Amino acid sequence: MQGKYRALWLNDDEFLEVIDQRKLPFEYKTKVLKTTDEVVMAIKDMTVRGAGVIGSVAAFGIYIAAMEVKGSYKELKEKALLIRESRPTAVNLMWAVDKMMEFLKDSTSLVSDAKEFAIQLNDKEALESQKIAEYGCDIIEDILKKKNKTKINILTHCNAGWLAVIDDGTALAPIYEAKKRGIDVHVWVDETRPRNQGASLTAWELTQSGVKHTIIADNTGGHLMQIGEVDMVITGADRVSANGDVANKIGTYLKALAAFDNAIPFYVAIPASTFDFDIKDGIKEIPIELRSEDEVKYMRGVDSEGKVREVLITPKDSPAINYGFDVTPARLITGLITNKGVCEADFDKIQEKFRG
Amino acid sequence: MQGKYRALWLNDDEFLEVIDQRKLPFEYKTKVLKTTDEVVMAIKDMTVRGAGVIGSVAAFGIYIAAMEVKGSYKELKEKALLIRESRPTAVNLMWAVDKMMEFLKDSTSLVSDAKEFAIQLNDKEALESQKIAEYGCDIIEDILKKKNKTKINILTHCNAGWLAVIDDGTALAPIYEAKKRGIDVHVWVDETRPRNQGASLTAWELTQSGVKHTIIADNTGGHLMQIGEVDMVITGADRVSANGDVANKIGTYLKALAAFDNAIPFYVAIPASTFDFDIKDGIKEIPIELRSEDEVKYMRGVDSEGKVREVLITPKDSPAINYGFDVTPARLITGLITNKGVCEADFDKIQEKFRG
Repeated sequence: MQGKYRALWLNDDEFLEVIDQRKLPFEYKTKVLKTTDEVVMAIKDMTVRGAGVIGSVAAFGIYIAAMEVKGSYKELKEKALLIRESRPTAVNLMWAVDKMMEFLKDSTSLVSDAKEFAIQLNDKEALESQKIAEYGCDIIEDILKKKNKTKINILTHCNAGWLAVIDDGTALAPIYEAKKRGIDVHVWVDETRPRNQGASLTAWELTQSGVKHTIIADNTGGHLMQIGEVDMVITGADRVSANGDVANKIGTYLKALAAFDNAIPFYVAIPASTFDFDIKDGIKEIPIELRSEDEVKYMRGVDSEGKVREVLITPKDSPAINYGFDVTPARLITGLITNKGVCEADFDKIQEKFRG
Repeated sequence: MQGKYRALWLNDDEFLEVIDQRKLPFEYKTKVLKTTDEVVMAIKDMTVRGAGVIGSVAAFGIYIAAMEVKGSYKELKEKALLIRESRPTAVNLMWAVDKMMEFLKDSTSLVSDAKEFAIQLNDKEALESQKIAEYGCDIIEDILKKKNKTKINILTHCNAGWLAVIDDGTALAPIYEAKKRGIDVHVWVDETRPRNQGASLTAWELTQSGVKHTIIADNTGGHLMQIGEVDMVITGADRVSANGDVANKIGTYLKALAAFDNAIPFYVAIPASTFDFDIKDGIKEIPIELRSEDEVKYMRGVDSEGKVREVLITPKDSPAINYGFDVTPARLITGLITNKGVCEADFDKIQEKFRG
């Protein structure tokens, strides 16, 4: 299948095809998006998710929209707005739409130009992912050399693989690269409650890619580190402040604490665009999304007859609270693996490397 | 209902009645245990669980067995062995059976003596729980006074309440006492993956007892501590080493790290019998139970029609690993709340107080 190692692609009819991530890991289904409305809906209902992938779908979404407007940039702008607003807090989404519309401003051939620009944007992201893969894998090789070991155990939290970012993701990119280089790599997959992106998406992705892995409850990482079963942690990030504090999926902070307590390297893999230089203190300033309590109270899975069901796992009347992210202070982070190389999580070093 | 605040009791017919904890929080059902076989099965199939409660059921189980043996101590011994072996690793279970059989050695009235001894054993445990409640609640009052606050937010992990230990549990005992003293107390309930004892048992218990609480994913506690929403952590323990290292439900260590990082008091509530003086280094020496991967891969809940179902929440072929406990080093623990008072988690202090 074409989508085996990619979350989206142009199909033979030149329409956008995406993996329906809501159905994973229970069903592999793809969806063809032929209209602006279908693109908007796919982002809205989380058929596609993951910062990078949402941006990529949005870029190709402008191409799909261009097919509907018969050369009118004004009409395309209206459609672009619909895509741009499909998920209001997704930075990559807005960035990709704005970039595309800027590109197309003086175009006299909207459809073919949009297609070309979207492919260019995606190629750029894929190249960034490849750079992260290489820099990260160099660190893996260093750790193995220092420890005089041949097998590496890497713990990851949430999903920052090819379902999230074109082509190979961020946190998982160095792992895929390690496999390519013939390194014996095994991944501890945090299930990542409450939305279970680890147990569903990461485990599925690693299965497809033939990478050895074991799913663990989020509670388990500390013990594994204590008994020497974790050589390294790599996570992604949603936003990194100017001083190197990292906002990522809720629970990342706890794993960083445990890694620090056990002197285990803790890396965060990001494209350089993840920095938010306006934020000087991540813990005080990065706003944390509060999501529906139902994500904590209900769980989705397949029953013994193969039917996907949602079940209530708590007392009906007990309230729950659901913060989506937490912030890991820079002092707990060994380094940031970026497409421009590895950087310490430190204000001056970040300024020097990324704004110099 | 008689079992509202107790996990077991003698019913009007003088038989043992217990809450069926397997059905919680979805159904409140009790079971009457009239024979040794029924007692053994209730322990084996986890109708009853929790270190203290298993011991209590075993003690009353000897009384139930006594009714079957027509005064023969030899026959009672055989039945006692069946109860003793119903769960091989439960220390309280063996201790309670041995204590009962020792008591009854010279008895000429097995049934009435067994009943009386079982009640005595339970009263002793209930008194210990009450002492833990009082010492723990004094700490709560101190914290409120120091912070000049009137409302306390306490985080707990797993279930160490009245479903686990007669009468009011260990970790939850100070919370129930706080409620009695009129303190405005709110509990953050870690769901406690993979078996969800927090989301099912603790949340249910607190609901029954009218204690305000909110269920959170295990990943959430660190963030809540960072933003000042946790004043104190109290957990129970399965075993405490001579130097004060604490073996408790997997994930406890991560919360202790976060509490330490945010200067939040982290207490462990235990009866003094929880110490294992043979173990000098908890992290190196306490064996950690490895349980079935199915507890990670499957989840139980009720569907929209109210039917209890188990669903698979991971890719079918992805392996999982399931450690039941972790060990929190003494250096992260503010104090041990015991029935003999509060003690630092320190080798010398523990020796002095409990072996002096």
